Amino acid sequence: MKIAHLADLHLGKSVNGFSMIEEQKHILQEILDIFKEQQIQTVCIAGDVYDRQIPSIEAVNLLNWFLEELNKESYEVFMIAGNHDNGDRLSFGSSIFDQMHIHIAGNFSGTVPAYEMEDEYGSIVFHLLPFVRPITVNRYIEDENEKAGDYTQAVQKALQRDTVDPGKRNVILSHQFVTGTQVDENGSEELTVGGLDQVAGSVYDAYDYVCLGHIHRPQKVCRETMLYSGTPLKYSFSECSQVKSVPIVTCKEKGRIEIAYVPLHPMHEMREISGTFHEIMQAEKSEDYMHVTLRDEEDIPDAIRSLRQVFPNIMKLDYDNRRTQQAQHSEMAAEEMSHSPMEIFASFYQSRTTASLNEEQKKLMEDLIQEIWEDGQ
Amino acid sequence: MKIAHLADLHLGKSVNGFSMIEEQKHILQEILDIFKEQQIQTVCIAGDVYDRQIPSIEAVNLLNWFLEELNKESYEVFMIAGNHDNGDRLSFGSSIFDQMHIHIAGNFSGTVPAYEMEDEYGSIVFHLLPFVRPITVNRYIEDENEKAGDYTQAVQKALQRDTVDPGKRNVILSHQFVTGTQVDENGSEELTVGGLDQVAGSVYDAYDYVCLGHIHRPQKVCRETMLYSGTPLKYSFSECSQVKSVPIVTCKEKGRIEIAYVPLHPMHEMREISGTFHEIMQAEKSEDYMHVTLRDEEDIPDAIRSLRQVFPNIMKLDYDNRRTQQAQHSEMAAEEMSHSPMEIFASFYQSRTTASLNEEQKKLMEDLIQEIWEDGQ
Repeated sequence: MKIAHLADLHLGKSVNGFSMIEEQKHILQEILDIFKEQQIQTVCIAGDVYDRQIPSIEAVNLLNWFLEELNKESYEVFMIAGNHDNGDRLSFGSSIFDQMHIHIAGNFSGTVPAYEMEDEYGSIVFHLLPFVRPITVNRYIEDENEKAGDYTQAVQKALQRDTVDPGKRNVILSHQFVTGTQVDENGSEELTVGGLDQVAGSVYDAYDYVCLGHIHRPQKVCRETMLYSGTPLKYSFSECSQVKSVPIVTCKEKGRIEIAYVPLHPMHEMREISGTFHEIMQAEKSEDYMHVTLRDEEDIPDAIRSLRQVFPNIMKLDYDNRRTQQAQHSEMAAEEMSHSPMEIFASFYQSRTTASLNEEQKKLMEDLIQEIWEDGQ
Repeated sequence: MKIAHLADLHLGKSVNGFSMIEEQKHILQEILDIFKEQQIQTVCIAGDVYDRQIPSIEAVNLLNWFLEELNKESYEVFMIAGNHDNGDRLSFGSSIFDQMHIHIAGNFSGTVPAYEMEDEYGSIVFHLLPFVRPITVNRYIEDENEKAGDYTQAVQKALQRDTVDPGKRNVILSHQFVTGTQVDENGSEELTVGGLDQVAGSVYDAYDYVCLGHIHRPQKVCRETMLYSGTPLKYSFSECSQVKSVPIVTCKEKGRIEIAYVPLHPMHEMREISGTFHEIMQAEKSEDYMHVTLRDEEDIPDAIRSLRQVFPNIMKLDYDNRRTQQAQHSEMAAEEMSHSPMEIFASFYQSRTTASLNEEQKKLMEDLIQEIWEDGQ
């Protein structure tokens, strides 16, 4: 069976104030062409389908069109909600879609829906685990001592409710921040807030292929068969050097999985360029999304307007000169002394109230910081 | 064929600050029971499915559940968007739902989708026209002279794009403010703003049954076979005396339609009561949604708190005494001198600028007032 692995579409996203909707339509069309060419049978979409809890109408129409196209080709489609999605909204109509070979898991509701398919090698089972937080899973756990304390435990306890037949081939869709290293059970306290949502890759040991979403850079985790497909488009200048592609996963007999990557071609590339204003004005015209860094010592008045003649889709402009380097230097010095957000807040609180945070307040702040942190990912 | 006619569900609506979601779930369950009992084959939902453009998650989940239940019974479902719905959001997945016997028309897109069914009397065709404004229809009309000038023309011109075989039985779903009287083609100027959205019932002459939504009071318009089902629940104290029901429309051979009304039973009634505070505190306890009018000459301090002991779901409290009657009298006097909103604005504009509104400004204001007026319906 040939499976296409997608994730983090973030339909409706804007990047630096530029709507990505046309880019997304273009790339989804290319993806559909790839599916035909590769003769895939199954499409997995591992969360963050939309960019927002309440997607724009353009985003709704785009997903509608994409699902229609997938449906026309009779692909079996599996889709889970990520942390950017609203599970209820994403899974509207899911029991009806189910009958049309589109399977959507919006919110974790105490079980892990699984769908069995057949190919020439026998059964292959797709397990759908939407994004979970400890609180999501703990709702279904009565015993206080059994409740999940961190994200690894949350996924672990969610998957304890799944039935995996080790004789069959098993694929799981999951949308979490999975790391290669086993996290010590008592170790989570030591992590800074940004790392609290980490999930140890070993929780997925029972599954032959782990179809991950959440991290935008395509990468393997832990083993050859646990993958982030990454976003289909570059959504940040930090992704400039990445090659975006669609992993095509061929599942043969149990234990034999082959993965090929089909590269994607956006309407507009995302590029960074630096030089003096004079140099850059000589550059070849391009509609790429540009981050221009000017090396001039003096600010150029209304530089952006001039640069738009060369780069109409310029997204970001800054300077790299003595002034900005000095500013950066002071920032770096400050960063060296930096503390975790929790520590900073605790000292702020103390400075204002002269009291320390109590345990309840600490917990509240941790949850809050955690939530804000996740929403940014 | 037995058809159930629903409209104006307004899922997610709040009435006087009380969420109606539990009431709506209850009444939809009763409606499902009626469908089974009546052995209907087809369900028509004539718009204002949701109460808002972006429905709440509770409303989304409720419609999801209702459609699932309809789907389980294999009813053929026809649904159009009303002025409260967002057509794009409502029709997400519609081409996939189509294959599962759920047919949704979100936005008018230049054609009137029609679905042909068969019964022992032959063909019966369902035509789906979502809520249209002149501007909606004019998008599809090139010739300036052909553009719709009012709502009657808008519906007329939309329906010119429909194909009706007079040999077959034809049912149309439409969500407009339809009036019995034929509106003179040049007469719309004379109407006040509130009436500009009126549609002459004669535009539907080609259809055997007209399944209407928009007006909350159940009623026939023009003829026996053109009907507003009304809302399934009372959504305002002005509807206290109405009996809410589901019209069951039996289509036999062409020209023979029988309509029966199955009454609905809400969890809580909506009632008005008046008397002195002392009298009302003696009334029988009730969880009905109450509008209490106190006849005491003196205001009762914190009356609402006391009244909640008798009527925990009291929605509205006011006084009917010499003071309020006097205030009402002055209001009525003011009303006698009243002008249309347009006239009031024009004189306000003149008083501020000493200039009169020009034609363009007038048009802008008319459109604006019209839009605001509609949103309230």
